[in-house]
Amino acid sequence: MQNDELKRFSELIETQSSDELIGLLKDLHPADIAELCNELEPEEAKYIYLLLDNETAPDVLIEMDEDARKRFLDILPPETIAKRFVDHMDSDDAVDIIRELDEEKQEEILSHIEDIEQAGDIVDLLKYDEDTAGGLMGTEMLVVNENWSMPECLKEMRHQAEELDEIYYIYVVDDEERLQGVFPLKKMITSPSVSKIKHVMEKAPVSVHEETPIEEVVQVIEKYDLVAVPVVDSIGRLVGQITVDDVMDQVREQAERDYQLASGLSQDVETDDSVLKQTTARLPWLLIGMLGGIGNSMILGNFDSTFAAHPEMALYIPLIGGTGGNVGTQSSALVVQGLANNSLQSNNTWKQILKESVVALINASIISMLVYAYNFLRFGPTATVSYSVSISLFVVVMFASIFGTLVPMTLERLKIDPAIATGPFISITNDIVGMMFYMLITVLLSQL
Amino acid sequence: MQNDELKRFSELIETQSSDELIGLLKDLHPADIAELCNELEPEEAKYIYLLLDNETAPDVLIEMDEDARKRFLDILPPETIAKRFVDHMDSDDAVDIIRELDEEKQEEILSHIEDIEQAGDIVDLLKYDEDTAGGLMGTEMLVVNENWSMPECLKEMRHQAEELDEIYYIYVVDDEERLQGVFPLKKMITSPSVSKIKHVMEKAPVSVHEETPIEEVVQVIEKYDLVAVPVVDSIGRLVGQITVDDVMDQVREQAERDYQLASGLSQDVETDDSVLKQTTARLPWLLIGMLGGIGNSMILGNFDSTFAAHPEMALYIPLIGGTGGNVGTQSSALVVQGLANNSLQSNNTWKQILKESVVALINASIISMLVYAYNFLRFGPTATVSYSVSISLFVVVMFASIFGTLVPMTLERLKIDPAIATGPFISITNDIVGMMFYMLITVLLSQL
Repeated sequence: MQNDELKRFSELIETQSSDELIGLLKDLHPADIAELCNELEPEEAKYIYLLLDNETAPDVLIEMDEDARKRFLDILPPETIAKRFVDHMDSDDAVDIIRELDEEKQEEILSHIEDIEQAGDIVDLLKYDEDTAGGLMGTEMLVVNENWSMPECLKEMRHQAEELDEIYYIYVVDDEERLQGVFPLKKMITSPSVSKIKHVMEKAPVSVHEETPIEEVVQVIEKYDLVAVPVVDSIGRLVGQITVDDVMDQVREQAERDYQLASGLSQDVETDDSVLKQTTARLPWLLIGMLGGIGNSMILGNFDSTFAAHPEMALYIPLIGGTGGNVGTQSSALVVQGLANNSLQSNNTWKQILKESVVALINASIISMLVYAYNFLRFGPTATVSYSVSISLFVVVMFASIFGTLVPMTLERLKIDPAIATGPFISITNDIVGMMFYMLITVLLSQL
Repeated sequence: MQNDELKRFSELIETQSSDELIGLLKDLHPADIAELCNELEPEEAKYIYLLLDNETAPDVLIEMDEDARKRFLDILPPETIAKRFVDHMDSDDAVDIIRELDEEKQEEILSHIEDIEQAGDIVDLLKYDEDTAGGLMGTEMLVVNENWSMPECLKEMRHQAEELDEIYYIYVVDDEERLQGVFPLKKMITSPSVSKIKHVMEKAPVSVHEETPIEEVVQVIEKYDLVAVPVVDSIGRLVGQITVDDVMDQVREQAERDYQLASGLSQDVETDDSVLKQTTARLPWLLIGMLGGIGNSMILGNFDSTFAAHPEMALYIPLIGGTGGNVGTQSSALVVQGLANNSLQSNNTWKQILKESVVALINASIISMLVYAYNFLRFGPTATVSYSVSISLFVVVMFASIFGTLVPMTLERLKIDPAIATGPFISITNDIVGMMFYMLITVLLSQL
């Protein structure tokens, strides 16, 4: 949204020009109105919402940024939230929004929902863990019985369809509500309207269990190129569906999370978050890095006499530490990415380490030789520092590669998120270990 | 795919047990057969393909990994690829696969396609830049004329639908083929079958231009929660559609790319790529890091006398360099992510730098004070090193935060991918600049 456009809306709100505003809003998509409301003050956004119809208002609320939405909902009474928004939302969207509020407000909103069926669905969905299929699914979907004839189905579908926003698949269940098949809407057009639906449906459709972790749901939808996937309970009853738009948000959020962990940010944080939230998201890794740096200074402190004998050794501290960090970050990032997109299995640890070692051997040789050539020219052919730095670099690259592969793969086997082992963790560890190798190799070479 | 399952298939192929194989394959989803073929030798995969029907075989090929697919297609004659696969594929999938082959083979395949309309579509699509809407779209879609009545539409749709895999929207065009509206398939069920389609369609649908960059297409689909988006040419004619499954791959690939750049990997690389490809993807940043380290050693070499007077200064080189790297990585990652998901605009540079400075001020103060307290205990209250290290840390954190914000935002304004400014680039720069600050501050303090 452009600044001048935003200014115009602010002015119209201030002068309470509701007719003109209604005219402008009519031409905007809910996602565009949401962008506008993200930028407005909560009281201004409230004025806009009062001008929207019951169908548009909830769509706009769903599309808003989480922070802006929270500020806006804070100034609304629970009864208004329930009757104006929650009553007209799909159950999965309602649950997403209610989850963001504190428990007291949640209870109040639930007690004000007029549609009892909707309230029941929301209460049921709130019980699921947020990170499972149950926590992501909605209960709005087209369901027909396998024994119905096509005309019967069509009649029921017309009845159900009025309350549904989008329909991609029609789910077919038996008398016990167990999922039996799926019927792509497309077939409504191409199938002859004869016989029972169970004879034209696709049997044994891909489905997920209500407690399947979200990452697996994402994998299923991606692998089978689905637009929606049905969710079943432990005895196979259809309990909801997850649509691709919810999954796409998940793909992006998951990728952003890995990226943040690799960059040393310890919680989900955005540039528009408050200074306090940004500080708390960043300070932990900086403090760990600080402890690493102090630890390093203690290690180096034990080698006073080495530095006294070879003052030029100090010059290469940044090179050794930096190279270890860079190599380790590369190796761990490759592994974390491979595990995330399923191209790497955690039981292939040794195979991966072997391959990684070959790559490391090539890189280590090239870098060590180049640095040796430079030091040869700088310090002459016999300087201890030339051997010491290049041998240390070689060892550090080999170690960092193997360590950067082994740690995330081990974490995956222990069912711990391997992404936490990337970024600062790997570079700090490699920095310290590299410094120890460097000092020990120098001491050894000095004694030869 | 489990190893023993894979072994079983290999055995059945070796013994040419085609009946048993056909029985097993019948129960598998194309995506599962593709996983199997990824693991098999090309000749084995060929045997499997011969057993698949014309509808399943192309689906399996599309779902295969790019590398495995390339190995497999290499052993097939162009005529077989054309008649067995390309003739039965959606145009966008066919284009994706043909693009992977060398030009000579491309020409041969095109000359063997039997369906002339399909061949023409593919030739047209190959002209588009791979990174635009035109390069991603398919031409298979349901199109009706705005002046048709509902029964007319339904008849034409039945005719068209037989050739289409999935249908989400029906596109409505005028007599000049210009996109006028969209008709969600769901409305087929709920709308009364009266009057012309232009009176029931949704007008002015969201669409993208054929030359719109893919990143923008992704943003449009995400923003408006679409399952497919129509593509139009410069005079508004409908030329294709992009479906959400293609976009989801893009979201993942884009996120992986940013992650790789932040981790110092210079091209799209996976754990299962060859040693050569892995080495070439990783060596560039390692060499730049090496040059940075050597540069650092040259800077430090100018401060011999400082180290001679204060040998304990060397101990804190890793802390100063590491902290600068960590802070810079955090700041740049936040900016790159904000720019990628559109929550940050590049014209807000100064606002973002101001905010970043406040966060930096807090972090810098906390870290400097903690390190000062440690050095106070370690070296006593009057040691130059205590002041020097803490003041340097403060300056380095402030610099790294502002630099890490400024660089990616400037790149974005220059239309250069800001992600290249993350990871190794930021940490190497901050390492060198940090070392210079450290030395200069120490010299200044020594002269006081």
